[in-house]
Amino acid sequence: MQTLEKIGEEKIVQWLIKNIPSHGSNVLLGNGHDAAVIRLKGKYAFKTDTLVVTKMLNGVSLEDLGWKAVCACASDLATVGAKPLYSTISVCAPRTLLFKELKSLFYGIKQALSHIGAVLVGGDLSENPLISVSVNLLGEISGKYYGRTGSKPGDLIAVSREFGLEPLGLKILLKEIDITSEKLQKRSLHDFLRPLPEVDYGVVLGKLGFIHSCTDSSDSLAISIKNLIGSQLDAVIERLPTHPLLYTLDKKLVENLVLYGGEEYALVFTYDEKDDKRLKRALNKIGRDRIIIGRVKEGSGKILLKGKKTRVIKARGWRQFQSKS
Amino acid sequence: MQTLEKIGEEKIVQWLIKNIPSHGSNVLLGNGHDAAVIRLKGKYAFKTDTLVVTKMLNGVSLEDLGWKAVCACASDLATVGAKPLYSTISVCAPRTLLFKELKSLFYGIKQALSHIGAVLVGGDLSENPLISVSVNLLGEISGKYYGRTGSKPGDLIAVSREFGLEPLGLKILLKEIDITSEKLQKRSLHDFLRPLPEVDYGVVLGKLGFIHSCTDSSDSLAISIKNLIGSQLDAVIERLPTHPLLYTLDKKLVENLVLYGGEEYALVFTYDEKDDKRLKRALNKIGRDRIIIGRVKEGSGKILLKGKKTRVIKARGWRQFQSKS
Repeated sequence: MQTLEKIGEEKIVQWLIKNIPSHGSNVLLGNGHDAAVIRLKGKYAFKTDTLVVTKMLNGVSLEDLGWKAVCACASDLATVGAKPLYSTISVCAPRTLLFKELKSLFYGIKQALSHIGAVLVGGDLSENPLISVSVNLLGEISGKYYGRTGSKPGDLIAVSREFGLEPLGLKILLKEIDITSEKLQKRSLHDFLRPLPEVDYGVVLGKLGFIHSCTDSSDSLAISIKNLIGSQLDAVIERLPTHPLLYTLDKKLVENLVLYGGEEYALVFTYDEKDDKRLKRALNKIGRDRIIIGRVKEGSGKILLKGKKTRVIKARGWRQFQSKS
Repeated sequence: MQTLEKIGEEKIVQWLIKNIPSHGSNVLLGNGHDAAVIRLKGKYAFKTDTLVVTKMLNGVSLEDLGWKAVCACASDLATVGAKPLYSTISVCAPRTLLFKELKSLFYGIKQALSHIGAVLVGGDLSENPLISVSVNLLGEISGKYYGRTGSKPGDLIAVSREFGLEPLGLKILLKEIDITSEKLQKRSLHDFLRPLPEVDYGVVLGKLGFIHSCTDSSDSLAISIKNLIGSQLDAVIERLPTHPLLYTLDKKLVENLVLYGGEEYALVFTYDEKDDKRLKRALNKIGRDRIIIGRVKEGSGKILLKGKKTRVIKARGWRQFQSKS
C-alpha cells in the first residue's frame, strides 16, 4: 500500500508541484521554493481558516473535505468583498494515510481553488494523527470593504440565500435524522459537502459601497446576526430565510436548522432601506437577490424573533471547544 | 480548572483581540472581523508553516513553541529577502488545554511577531487532540528575491552562521545525549528553543541583488545544499561550518549534527566569487559575516565532502512522514 510514509515528503511535494502548478503573471516565485513571491497593489483581504477532520463520516470523501476547506475560507473573503487570488495551504495527515487519499484531498482543493479563481502558490505538509487543512487566502478588494461592525438603527438585515439545507445535510450524515424525500436528502448532502462561497455576491456588495456590515453564516444565522449587532443594538427578525424544500418538515426542527444550524456560508449584512432598490437591481444583474429578514434597532444586543408572540432568541450555534450549546 | 472547554471560543477570541491587537496604518481591518484587510504595494513573500506538537518534552514550554513556530516561518521569508509585515495564525488545541497554557503559547507568538516586526491581523482556533500552530506571513521585498534554483558552476556556497548547537539542543531534550559542559548544554537548549530567523541578513542579501539562490537549513545543511544544486550540479564542501563550542565533542557526532541535524534556520546561499568582497562588506555593516563552505560545480546532484578522502554524502535530514533516515 502506498502510504505517505512509504512515498516520503519529497515525492509528495514533487507530485504537488507538478499537479497544482503556480501560474499567473504576478506570481514571481511559486510552489517549490521556501516562500512564494507575488506582486500586489491595492487593498487585500488576508484570511486563514482550518478544517480539522475529527471523524471521517460515511458518505464524505477527502475530495469533499478539500473543497469545503477552501470554500469556507473563500466565504470569509466574500464578507469583505474580496476576490480570492492567491492561496497557501497547510495539510496535516497521518503517515499511514494512503497517497491516493492525499491526492483525493488535493483534487478537492484544486477544484475549489479553480472555482473561486485562486492560485496555489505555496504550502506545507506535516504529520498529525488527524487530517486537517489550513487554507490561507489573499484576495483583492476593488470596491469598499465591510467589517462586522457598522450596523445602524433602522438598517435592514438581509441574507444572500435560503437557509437550512446544509445543516440538514450534516444531520443526515451524523444519522441524527431520517429523511424520506430522496430529493431533499440528496440536495442537503450535496449542499453540505460542496458549499458555494458567495464570492461574486460579495464583490457586488463591495462595488455598491453602501453596505454597513457583513459576515457569513458558517457558525449559525443567530451568531451572524449577533456579530452584526454587537451589544448596543437589537435585531428584530420578521421572517426566517427558510429553504422551501424544508416546508414539509417539522416546524420546530426547521426553525432550529435555520437559526442555529450553521454550515451555510451565506452572507448576512445590513444596509439602509433607501438603498434597497439599487441593491436588488445590482444583484439581479448577476442572477441573484437579497432576502430581507428583519431590521436593526437601538437596544442591547438582543435578537427578537417575531411570531404570534415575539421572543428573544440566543446566539447559539457552532463554537470551538464546546459541544453545540 | 479554566480549560478551553470551560472558557469557550468567544471569550478566548475576546482575550486575543485585546492582548494581540492589530495596529498599523495599512491595517484597514484587523482582528475580530471575518477577514483582515490590508493595503499592499510591491513584491511580497507569502508563506505558511505549521508546527505540530507531537509530544511535550520536559524543559519545553508552550511559550517556546509559539516563538519557534513564528520564527520558522519568518526564516522562510528571509530566504527570499522579505521583511515580515503581516501574520495570520491558526491554532489547534484540545478542549482540555488550560486557558493559561494557550495564553502562554500566544505570549511566545506575540514576542516572536514583535521580534520579527510583524503584526497579527487575523487567526483561527480549532479543536484537535494535538496542539499545532500554523503561521502565515506576508513580507515585503524591497530588493531582489531568490528562489532555490539559480546556482551556477563555480559559485561559492556560504552559510549565515555556525551549525550544530540547535540539533544538539534537541538531542539533549530527547535525552539521546549527555553533555557535561553546562555552558554548552544551556546554549544548545536556548538556541533550539528560541531560534533567531535571519530576517535582517536576508534583507541585506536581497538589497545586494547578486545572490544566485538561497534556502534555509531547517531540514538539515545537507538537504539545503541538495535543494540549491538540484540534479544538474554538484557541491564540493571544503569546510563544515561547525560551531566552536562543539570542538570538544566526538568528531563523528559533530559531523552528523552539522550536516544532518537541521533546526538551525541559518541561510544557505550561492553567489559568484567576484561578489564576495561586496557581500562581506555589506554583512559586516550589520555586524555579521558569511561562512564560505564550498563551491558549486557541474555534475549530477552529488554532495562531495572533502577530507583526507573525498566522499559523497547523502541529502539526509528531516523529512515529514518518515523517521530520520
